[in-house]
Amino acid sequence: MGKMTGKWCTETYRDTALSFKIKKKLYAKRSKFQMVEVYETEKHGNLMALDGCYMVSTAEEFVYHDMLTHIPMFAHPDPKDVLVIGGGDGGTVREVMRHKGVNSIDFVEIDGDVYTVSKKYFPALVKGLEQDKRVHFKFGDGIKFVKESKNKYDVILIDGTDPSDIAGGLFGTEFFKDVYNALKKDGVMCMQSEDPWYDTGIIKDVQTRLRKVFKQVHLYLAFIPIYPSGMWSFSCASKKYDPRVIRNKKSKIEKFRYYTPELHRAAFALPRFVKDGIK
Amino acid sequence: MGKMTGKWCTETYRDTALSFKIKKKLYAKRSKFQMVEVYETEKHGNLMALDGCYMVSTAEEFVYHDMLTHIPMFAHPDPKDVLVIGGGDGGTVREVMRHKGVNSIDFVEIDGDVYTVSKKYFPALVKGLEQDKRVHFKFGDGIKFVKESKNKYDVILIDGTDPSDIAGGLFGTEFFKDVYNALKKDGVMCMQSEDPWYDTGIIKDVQTRLRKVFKQVHLYLAFIPIYPSGMWSFSCASKKYDPRVIRNKKSKIEKFRYYTPELHRAAFALPRFVKDGIK
Repeated sequence: MGKMTGKWCTETYRDTALSFKIKKKLYAKRSKFQMVEVYETEKHGNLMALDGCYMVSTAEEFVYHDMLTHIPMFAHPDPKDVLVIGGGDGGTVREVMRHKGVNSIDFVEIDGDVYTVSKKYFPALVKGLEQDKRVHFKFGDGIKFVKESKNKYDVILIDGTDPSDIAGGLFGTEFFKDVYNALKKDGVMCMQSEDPWYDTGIIKDVQTRLRKVFKQVHLYLAFIPIYPSGMWSFSCASKKYDPRVIRNKKSKIEKFRYYTPELHRAAFALPRFVKDGIK
Repeated sequence: MGKMTGKWCTETYRDTALSFKIKKKLYAKRSKFQMVEVYETEKHGNLMALDGCYMVSTAEEFVYHDMLTHIPMFAHPDPKDVLVIGGGDGGTVREVMRHKGVNSIDFVEIDGDVYTVSKKYFPALVKGLEQDKRVHFKFGDGIKFVKESKNKYDVILIDGTDPSDIAGGLFGTEFFKDVYNALKKDGVMCMQSEDPWYDTGIIKDVQTRLRKVFKQVHLYLAFIPIYPSGMWSFSCASKKYDPRVIRNKKSKIEKFRYYTPELHRAAFALPRFVKDGIK
């Protein structure tokens, strides 16, 4: 059928392979934790892969970062203290920074190389991070960091890789309990929670574990074309607020490229097979 | 990065290639109109491609067919006479048949080979079609068929391929005028309208042309993992009703696998970049 001529990069994920035409490979080096690669693609800008899985592309990064950040940030009435775990490319912190009411952003990434590579090949993602005095860089283990934090954050965002190797702990009950304790009494947490087409089991586990710890647990979806099925899920849990409702009247709703107030609620409307799959 | 070992089928679409592991190729023959291929995949069931583009897979066909059919069918208060143009695999007609209030379904597919191949390799898609006396098979040119129909249908569903070669006419203003005239005075039409990530220009053209003809024109989205970006759009236009509202109280809302009443409205909530792209 299709003939792949020229140069391509490919992510294989089980029985699926997603390839993009590239101009060249820009970077490939094993960090202390994982294989980090960057490609210059023809249509998607630069594309970063960690351990062979696409993470972020210049052209489409706004979807993931809008949706991981703004749903919980608008669900909380007045987020002042925010923790970002992972998200070494900088994009999530950049989006949190757009909320003027935020006083402090703790940014805990385990792999400093990801930040260094992002700084070089994805400058738009780290724009202003080092100049913003609210951002506190704390390179290290997010799981340990959360365990040592109590009653401290309004919003915690978990921007990890797939639940294998280094990120596995970010999907477990013990970690969720620590996140609960690190949040203030009306805190909201949100995490990327994998692909509903190809990893329903992981999502179901995450949702089940979160429900043991949090009062409010919900799943929402976004279209991300650099992930194998194009569908991605986020799990949002809260001690008090229903995250489907916009409560934050202080942050300005700017012209985000993906997020809109109407989409805030709509993103939680799940196709039946997803709803049934996570029960 | 990824190594593709074993046997795969691949669709290349511009700078993107989407591949699935296959057990074997089941069918490959040029019909009068197009190249028809069927693969037995490892995880997606059987997969049909027309002119190298994936059309339908056993495992995921329910998304496209649910969403093309049930949104317009529930938007119309009482659809009795329905026309399906294209949709040779049978799935759209099968979904229309689930609406018990429907009296008549005219099914106009130009390429009889697609139906024959579907009957053999996708039996679930054509199940009951030939036994249901409401279904009128009319193999032939849908564009010509619509031109000769006046004030006849409550709902018209256009289930064509990409707007090149045989399906090109299904995306033009003249055809949309004919669809308008073929509909009764409160009729609703719906068509697949391509990929918002990779073909915004086509969607914008379709929406602009529809707005010249119809009072109500709206776009909605669904997650379809066998299409290159995983995101697909449908354009729904109506002489009278806002299709975002469920008006049909006669059809039973069954446990569809994708469509839910909540999703009916939510599917129309567009990401900002899509909204801006079709203006």
